[in-house]
Amino acid sequence: MIVVFNENATDKQIQKVTEKLYDKGFDVHRSTGTAQIVLGVVGDTGTVDIRDYEVFEGVHEVIRISEPYKLASRSFKKEDTIVKVGKATFGGKQISMIAGPCSIESREQIKKIARMMKKTGTKVLRGGAYKPRTSPYAFQGMGEEGLKYLREAGDMNDMAVVSEVMDRMDIIPALKYVDMIQVGARNMQNFALLKELGKIDLPILLKRGMSATLQELLMAAEYIMAGGNHQVILCERGIRTFENYTRNTLDISAIPVLKKLSHLPVITDPSHGIGIRDKVAPMARASVAAGADGLIIETHYDPEKAFSDGAQTLYIKQYEELVKELKIIATAVKRTL
Amino acid sequence: MIVVFNENATDKQIQKVTEKLYDKGFDVHRSTGTAQIVLGVVGDTGTVDIRDYEVFEGVHEVIRISEPYKLASRSFKKEDTIVKVGKATFGGKQISMIAGPCSIESREQIKKIARMMKKTGTKVLRGGAYKPRTSPYAFQGMGEEGLKYLREAGDMNDMAVVSEVMDRMDIIPALKYVDMIQVGARNMQNFALLKELGKIDLPILLKRGMSATLQELLMAAEYIMAGGNHQVILCERGIRTFENYTRNTLDISAIPVLKKLSHLPVITDPSHGIGIRDKVAPMARASVAAGADGLIIETHYDPEKAFSDGAQTLYIKQYEELVKELKIIATAVKRTL
Amino acid sequence: MIVVFNENATDKQIQKVTEKLYDKGFDVHRSTGTAQIVLGVVGDTGTVDIRDYEVFEGVHEVIRISEPYKLASRSFKKEDTIVKVGKATFGGKQISMIAGPCSIESREQIKKIARMMKKTGTKVLRGGAYKPRTSPYAFQGMGEEGLKYLREAGDMNDMAVVSEVMDRMDIIPALKYVDMIQVGARNMQNFALLKELGKIDLPILLKRGMSATLQELLMAAEYIMAGGNHQVILCERGIRTFENYTRNTLDISAIPVLKKLSHLPVITDPSHGIGIRDKVAPMARASVAAGADGLIIETHYDPEKAFSDGAQTLYIKQYEELVKELKIIATAVKRTL
Amino acid sequence: MIVVFNENATDKQIQKVTEKLYDKGFDVHRSTGTAQIVLGVVGDTGTVDIRDYEVFEGVHEVIRISEPYKLASRSFKKEDTIVKVGKATFGGKQISMIAGPCSIESREQIKKIARMMKKTGTKVLRGGAYKPRTSPYAFQGMGEEGLKYLREAGDMNDMAVVSEVMDRMDIIPALKYVDMIQVGARNMQNFALLKELGKIDLPILLKRGMSATLQELLMAAEYIMAGGNHQVILCERGIRTFENYTRNTLDISAIPVLKKLSHLPVITDPSHGIGIRDKVAPMARASVAAGADGLIIETHYDPEKAFSDGAQTLYIKQYEELVKELKIIATAVKRTL
Repeated sequence: MIVVFNENATDKQIQKVTEKLYDKGFDVHRSTGTAQIVLGVVGDTGTVDIRDYEVFEGVHEVIRISEPYKLASRSFKKEDTIVKVGKATFGGKQISMIAGPCSIESREQIKKIARMMKKTGTKVLRGGAYKPRTSPYAFQGMGEEGLKYLREAGDMNDMAVVSEVMDRMDIIPALKYVDMIQVGARNMQNFALLKELGKIDLPILLKRGMSATLQELLMAAEYIMAGGNHQVILCERGIRTFENYTRNTLDISAIPVLKKLSHLPVITDPSHGIGIRDKVAPMARASVAAGADGLIIETHYDPEKAFSDGAQTLYIKQYEELVKELKIIATAVKRTL
Repeated sequence: MIVVFNENATDKQIQKVTEKLYDKGFDVHRSTGTAQIVLGVVGDTGTVDIRDYEVFEGVHEVIRISEPYKLASRSFKKEDTIVKVGKATFGGKQISMIAGPCSIESREQIKKIARMMKKTGTKVLRGGAYKPRTSPYAFQGMGEEGLKYLREAGDMNDMAVVSEVMDRMDIIPALKYVDMIQVGARNMQNFALLKELGKIDLPILLKRGMSATLQELLMAAEYIMAGGNHQVILCERGIRTFENYTRNTLDISAIPVLKKLSHLPVITDPSHGIGIRDKVAPMARASVAAGADGLIIETHYDPEKAFSDGAQTLYIKQYEELVKELKIIATAVKRTL
Repeated sequence: MIVVFNENATDKQIQKVTEKLYDKGFDVHRSTGTAQIVLGVVGDTGTVDIRDYEVFEGVHEVIRISEPYKLASRSFKKEDTIVKVGKATFGGKQISMIAGPCSIESREQIKKIARMMKKTGTKVLRGGAYKPRTSPYAFQGMGEEGLKYLREAGDMNDMAVVSEVMDRMDIIPALKYVDMIQVGARNMQNFALLKELGKIDLPILLKRGMSATLQELLMAAEYIMAGGNHQVILCERGIRTFENYTRNTLDISAIPVLKKLSHLPVITDPSHGIGIRDKVAPMARASVAAGADGLIIETHYDPEKAFSDGAQTLYIKQYEELVKELKIIATAVKRTL
Repeated sequence: MIVVFNENATDKQIQKVTEKLYDKGFDVHRSTGTAQIVLGVVGDTGTVDIRDYEVFEGVHEVIRISEPYKLASRSFKKEDTIVKVGKATFGGKQISMIAGPCSIESREQIKKIARMMKKTGTKVLRGGAYKPRTSPYAFQGMGEEGLKYLREAGDMNDMAVVSEVMDRMDIIPALKYVDMIQVGARNMQNFALLKELGKIDLPILLKRGMSATLQELLMAAEYIMAGGNHQVILCERGIRTFENYTRNTLDISAIPVLKKLSHLPVITDPSHGIGIRDKVAPMARASVAAGADGLIIETHYDPEKAFSDGAQTLYIKQYEELVKELKIIATAVKRTL
């Protein structure tokens, strides 16, 4: 942490800040060469609220020079983390696909889709049982019953399964059925939930909040990792921008940036990221071209009858076509899919 | 809901959409005068995903013409709702203040601040026991013990008390101690929590999410109200913008807009809304000038030693001064404080 | 400027950066106490692109510790600048009003409005002659003829007049007629225009761009001031946010922040800032309560027939009422109006 | 245009709106089936300010159902427009590259880079002569002299050349030297400039403003096209978001959206779009994967010595490598490069 003073800061003002820093147990190094007095603060400043020093008279600015996240950072761990989910891996040379319906609607529906996905080589099946809906009057998901059907569909096709929990009370039932737990965008800063997920031994698919910065996403990962669970997959799923023609704006640049800042695998969710079926494929291709470690995509044999998000769900045929295109693009980035 | 077709849409395309609408139980009125064919859809379209119709061939746009929230809207209830919290009222002619420290730090601290606030005429005491911190390594609050001290401090000074819960599991302990439950900005779309709060009989202070639209805030209120609890106070607490000189941007325009769309009381939180002590007072004054029904403000006898958010916390003297200024401004808007 | 290295940066990497800095004529002070090596750079780094150093191997971050604007900053000039426009002053104890129609529509219209505004004590008349319209098919303003009528209307009522130019080619005609030149939000970074305005001797009303940071606004002011013209009034006129119920979000917090960073007067434009008539008055009141040095407001005797922006234009009666409320609020902030 | 009334709107209120619409020359069709009265407005409503009707008592909402742009829209022209710039084409099966330095620095520099670009198969050379710099104290470009060198470099290598103008006064000199004129992001709504460019017979490379919606970009194109010049290439160059790790966020989703709304070619500028050298290639690959018709990329034989934007400029070797990767990705989307 660095404290920068105004050019006309008095010795007394500088003294007062220095004392507070010593009080808090930090060591202080004063740089006298520059026009502005600058204090270098030595010690663990990760939890300091920098505004506590900015409000002092004479202080121009306080700057945090180390990232507030540790376990999630590249400087903590240099090599890419590879997360295994069933037979799929995320974070290595292989690019892995997760696919399936937005909502689990019935035993038959999820089984039928699982079979279709299996044929495309997809190794992880998705399906929502607890649905975070903007309206209290909309379909809220099948709950634990849905998870049971999802598990069955996965087992019958030798696929791993992933589903979202909405609250720490949903974790116990989820543990019985799924191979990976998903944290939705609206829950990215549900700290009670994140802490609890840090205590379990299952991969976590952590979605970026709609207006979250990448640092905030990494801090959310840090919450999970601080509890001992290091199997976290980061997922870009579209940010809110001023554009209204799309539901969200899938932030493709998050891929190379996260890969540089962190050792964790990074995937995207082009279905939610763009929200309209005919633009899911271009965004999926762009994700792989930019270096994504995987994709999560909504598919259904009859999107028009889907209980939720049908408009952004691919027909099986479209998904098959997309997988072929992605295989070509993977070669351009020296990966396999 | 209105379905607008492209100018060159075919009869067959229009037919297909019409059939789906009939299938779903809606009545359809076709307007033939305009250049573009327009279908007016009659029935409860509140939970329809408009994209389900936008993906049809020939459709230009689908527009929801009724608001998705009902109970929270002015058209549902014309008169202002007045929420009582202890001896304070929110939503009537009287403007009410909520004040106190960011975190409850000890029995002595909260008692001392309560006494000081009482003297200023403040009727509601705030204090955080469960703290949503961005870093897992930062102070996380005193938990239930803190709530107990808050209750004591309130009782000794005949003040009502309000505190935040982070999760539906925190509701049971909170019910024992507080007069109003606060939902934080990061939890505005924690639907599991909102649903649970709909079942209790205590006022809810609902904070707007950092990037939430006002419609989303009203939909969050709707979640609570749909469960039967209509005592909701809306709170603007600063939105995220591109500006870095402030922590957030307190959206003053939310006040007149919410007052028009909804019958619920609207207050602001200038402490979090701007994040820097010397700008809290101007934003508090602006809020009252723009028609706020109340304010929630962080105060401490020694902000520099506060466990959290000290930089945005007012000294007692500053708060007293502010209250005086607010009384003058209240007269300009024909209110009392 | 400060260069922060990664904890594991090599001596060679640090050497390379140091050499480039010396090459560019800077002096360098190395701080060795902290865990991370930090270089303090001495010299005028105002025009350095900090990314030029961030791309070096081993560099963690480069931080600019002095503001890139000079003449516009409080550290350059401590006392408030007072800009005189006719008989009005902006920046002192007095709060001044600018009012009039969005567009000059005819000699009669502007004269009639000028008379009405004069009666309310307003000293500066506004009126647009060159209109920046989003659509090429919309009314584009009366041009120089409009400026002539504006001048006449001002002279007959002993009022100063202000109007917008869209381009540096509009400056010459404007100089003949107006007492202050307005730069619109879309032109805030029209650097060719700003440079030219730096050469003239007339106050400039500089509007903040719709998504500009306050630093960018101050850099735009710097462009004008660097040319020698120090009579700049900053104007907050609403920023773009995710909210759709309003046209823009008037950023009230810009007022106290700008007043702290700069010595220049700060006013707001609540008409454009909120875009809907019935919310102009609350936002105008909030502006004065937050410390604005003045307001610019659109008024018309018949807003429903106005050629442009009628929906955000106040009726004369509403404006008169507003002025009365503002006088009360001014006393709360120890100002006069 | 559609006017939606409140459920309890009175006949008198509806009458008043209807009369104003007739007054303005529109035809009105009243739909009586739905719960809410809805008026369909027939006639050219392109330049109507919808707020003029929203302010009427009893009106719930006014919705524009036709796009405000015409000439730029797919419904005006179904087939893709192909813009020819020298030997390059934009908008057909072929994907075309534009490359070169940010600033023209000397005759030698631009010649040297031109030769290197020529070898990679690049057909259009870029180079800035008038530089829009945030600081008035930064390098402002070589002006007309630079354009002359650019022309020479282009001619010697049989390449077309493109450069930016900042103001309508720069158009005359530019016409002498360049094959395409670029409008920068900050000038996207410089309407005086756009109008003037509508009168010339040269392709225009129109960059999206940093916070502009796609509709605003298309309206800017409409300004140019309304003047008679239909050779417009749209360029996505990064939008402003809350993310600070990158300079801007290249909005890849703009590509498929614009291609659907408009017949004009769409390219991206990954150099400005992301702002950091090591992330330019991933974003360039993503652009082609998502369907871009071309790219504009900053290259230099010695980026560290570049006068401007060196940090986002590719080394020649990196550019050559990128072109190879793009050729593979082009096959995945059935294009050539």
